[in-house]
Amino acid sequence: MTSPTIEQIFKHTSVRSYRPDPVSRQTVETIVAAGQRASTSSNMQFTTAVAVTDGAKRERLAELCGNQVHIRQAPVFIAWCIDRARLDHACQLRGYAQRTDTVESFLVAAADVAIFMQTATLAAESLGLGMCYIGAIRNNPRQIIELLGLPPLTFPLAGMTLGWPTAEGTIRPRLPLESVLHWETYGDPNEEAHLAEYDSAMVATGIYEGRQVPVPGQADQLEDYGWTEHSARRVSQRVRADLREILAEQGFTLAD
Amino acid sequence: MTSPTIEQIFKHTSVRSYRPDPVSRQTVETIVAAGQRASTSSNMQFTTAVAVTDGAKRERLAELCGNQVHIRQAPVFIAWCIDRARLDHACQLRGYAQRTDTVESFLVAAADVAIFMQTATLAAESLGLGMCYIGAIRNNPRQIIELLGLPPLTFPLAGMTLGWPTAEGTIRPRLPLESVLHWETYGDPNEEAHLAEYDSAMVATGIYEGRQVPVPGQADQLEDYGWTEHSARRVSQRVRADLREILAEQGFTLAD
Repeated sequence: MTSPTIEQIFKHTSVRSYRPDPVSRQTVETIVAAGQRASTSSNMQFTTAVAVTDGAKRERLAELCGNQVHIRQAPVFIAWCIDRARLDHACQLRGYAQRTDTVESFLVAAADVAIFMQTATLAAESLGLGMCYIGAIRNNPRQIIELLGLPPLTFPLAGMTLGWPTAEGTIRPRLPLESVLHWETYGDPNEEAHLAEYDSAMVATGIYEGRQVPVPGQADQLEDYGWTEHSARRVSQRVRADLREILAEQGFTLAD
Repeated sequence: MTSPTIEQIFKHTSVRSYRPDPVSRQTVETIVAAGQRASTSSNMQFTTAVAVTDGAKRERLAELCGNQVHIRQAPVFIAWCIDRARLDHACQLRGYAQRTDTVESFLVAAADVAIFMQTATLAAESLGLGMCYIGAIRNNPRQIIELLGLPPLTFPLAGMTLGWPTAEGTIRPRLPLESVLHWETYGDPNEEAHLAEYDSAMVATGIYEGRQVPVPGQADQLEDYGWTEHSARRVSQRVRADLREILAEQGFTLAD
């Protein structure tokens, strides 16, 4: 059970090394136009893409997004923005006042943007382009907002590098399907076994470089550092704790 | 500049009428496995799909999601859930405490789910299936959480009906590309003209059934009811104002 689209999806890797060749304006237009065709909540079309090709600006973006080298290297950077500013313009023209104080008003727009940008991603990959999402666009949102001139009621949800890959990437294993697809009711009765299975699969890729860690509760015994250890460490960090404040500055108060 | 994937993307319509034929378990597994291949922030894999085929449960889902007839009709309903419960399990196994109090911790997971589900959508459509996102899953989240047994640190971002379409849908125009794709800096210098152009395009589809509304500030003059009027009315409503509270109940406090 397959199709050209499914075959392509299964080849996806995030690309962090690009050839210097430019990506034409028409190509960017094609993939953004493809993104427009995706579902959008009540046809509200909450997405605006800001495409950056200017070298100095990409240099600054790289600095603001954790100094990721491929942001300097990729010919195009796209900032995928949640946009209720356009709808505010519509409200002004028609004599209405937009409500942007609820979590819902922000969340529905964020989901819209993610659906749009992932559709553009698959369009791009179908043309042989490579991409990598840049969550680090939320490392320094105030500076990004200033750099890109983002007005109130917009927010950069994610960045993306776009260009021609230098090489084929390595496809990493994901969690067992039974971990992420449940039937009728939430629950994976074998979750612990599935996590252990996935730990082994990830250790086997070599990505964790053979690291070992103490067995919890048995400090004198070592075991492989796997995905559960890696992820548990990560999600125990408190990162980007300034977002609520910055969103409020942009007009998304998340009050209710 | 096109590809089979782009051609498929341009044919997308939301399907709200399905044939009674079932969708096999293997088909659902294929499209969810495709969703797994999409980018996921730091490989955290924040998505769980709960697939519902049981008729009584779909009937109840339809009631909870604005009585949408196609939820009763479609053989499969998928609840696409933000899932940090699995990572909490990893934290318990490894002796860490997850932080889930920030907007970031919720937002990054929500974007992950949307990217996943849209990839599954394009995989499904490539097999001839039709789908429709159900934002109304957020109309009654507490009841949905109970019905699907969603534990703390999970939340249903969107629902989806899935099945074999009865007919080809009508593709609606979107905003002019210049409205949603900006270069180097945010801004569309011709936004008002583009909104007017789109109003005309949407009026021409007949979707607004020839309605007319007073010209703002000139109550005795009428003009076409277009997308700006339609959307401005919609975004001036305050909907689902209970989400912040319900997310807190699920462990996502959005404190910072």
